Amino acid sequence: MKRYVVIVAGGSGTRMGTSTPKQFLLLNGRPLLMHTIESFDKAGCSGNIIVVLPQKETGQWQQLTETYNFNTKHTVIAGGMTRSESVRNGLSHVPAESIVAIHDGVRPLASLELINRCFESAIETGNAIPAIPVVDSLRKIAGDKNTVADREVFRIIQTPQCFRSHELKKAYSQAGSHSFSDDATVFEKDGHAINLVEGERTNIKVTVMHDLMIASSILNAREH
Amino acid sequence: MKRYVVIVAGGSGTRMGTSTPKQFLLLNGRPLLMHTIESFDKAGCSGNIIVVLPQKETGQWQQLTETYNFNTKHTVIAGGMTRSESVRNGLSHVPAESIVAIHDGVRPLASLELINRCFESAIETGNAIPAIPVVDSLRKIAGDKNTVADREVFRIIQTPQCFRSHELKKAYSQAGSHSFSDDATVFEKDGHAINLVEGERTNIKVTVMHDLMIASSILNAREH
Repeated sequence: MKRYVVIVAGGSGTRMGTSTPKQFLLLNGRPLLMHTIESFDKAGCSGNIIVVLPQKETGQWQQLTETYNFNTKHTVIAGGMTRSESVRNGLSHVPAESIVAIHDGVRPLASLELINRCFESAIETGNAIPAIPVVDSLRKIAGDKNTVADREVFRIIQTPQCFRSHELKKAYSQAGSHSFSDDATVFEKDGHAINLVEGERTNIKVTVMHDLMIASSILNAREH
Repeated sequence: MKRYVVIVAGGSGTRMGTSTPKQFLLLNGRPLLMHTIESFDKAGCSGNIIVVLPQKETGQWQQLTETYNFNTKHTVIAGGMTRSESVRNGLSHVPAESIVAIHDGVRPLASLELINRCFESAIETGNAIPAIPVVDSLRKIAGDKNTVADREVFRIIQTPQCFRSHELKKAYSQAGSHSFSDDATVFEKDGHAINLVEGERTNIKVTVMHDLMIASSILNAREH
């Protein structure tokens, strides 16, 4: 089955303290979205990469690809008002008989092994959601109180989240206009059991400025 | 009120793939436990630093302090079979009329601001537990099933966890022989409400090898 990826890059730079969208910030000299795209290009998605960007950022991205001479083939489409709407727009460019990964644009460090593991497991079982254990203690808030939560029974969820395309399309078509924080939640709501696979602690989501520094150090360690 | 800290350093290096205890691994050229001790020395705990180490590591630590010419004053005491027993041993060296921080030996990056915030808040309210939001999606495992959990209502818990010494001592004396994952849990079990304060994403716990690399990059960025 052909591998597709929908890369969702809708974040603003506000939490970074910068007006540059997070996905365009430089990681070791190049916009981090380029790292993300390349990791899927190398993992068998070549020619089948759909990047969802806010409409107002598509011009800037076009310029960046020229400036950085970025030639990895990908299709840019405009996002919606919410993450779910953006994914839905992306999915409309994915054929039904394929396997699709939905991935955060600001996770530039998913390894080839991780991406392969997710695609392969999804082909077998219908979906694959990378997860890692919680290493710190966890507490649960209820009003102005909080109580201990058993960290052993929780998992931190990452992307790429992989699905059979026609099943994810169906799940999204039934999900209505509510916005979900990830695709596993949409898929679960459509009645599917979720298949967790082993994630990677280095597969970080770049959300605040020091994450960019951490991403850089992980990248450097890999290259040496 | 005088500030004390009990630094609990009982981890082995097995998850690191090394036989060196985690707390002795080199971070920017020095055992990471030295970084941890210094951060509390600078935060008003000078002379009141109790380091709990497994008995079998105390000789190695003594050698390391000589090798690295480490002169920051601290008291080394032997740990117990469990984390809770180690904390209890540490607390026996803390006077009742003081404020005490319990801190993970492998969290070398707690900032001065964070340590001050925790001590000050604990003096006011009786306890202070640093917490950060969950940025990734979260799922809950039950048997072979798993379901989405609302990440908004959870917090990731860090150390230093600060308390009025006599109250924490009492909580530990009533906690029995069960081992708890952190001190907030012991304190909560004794009937206290837990006061969460703002933690720091850079205040990481070094548990696997790449955390050491991340810690180093954070340290370098601070120094430049």
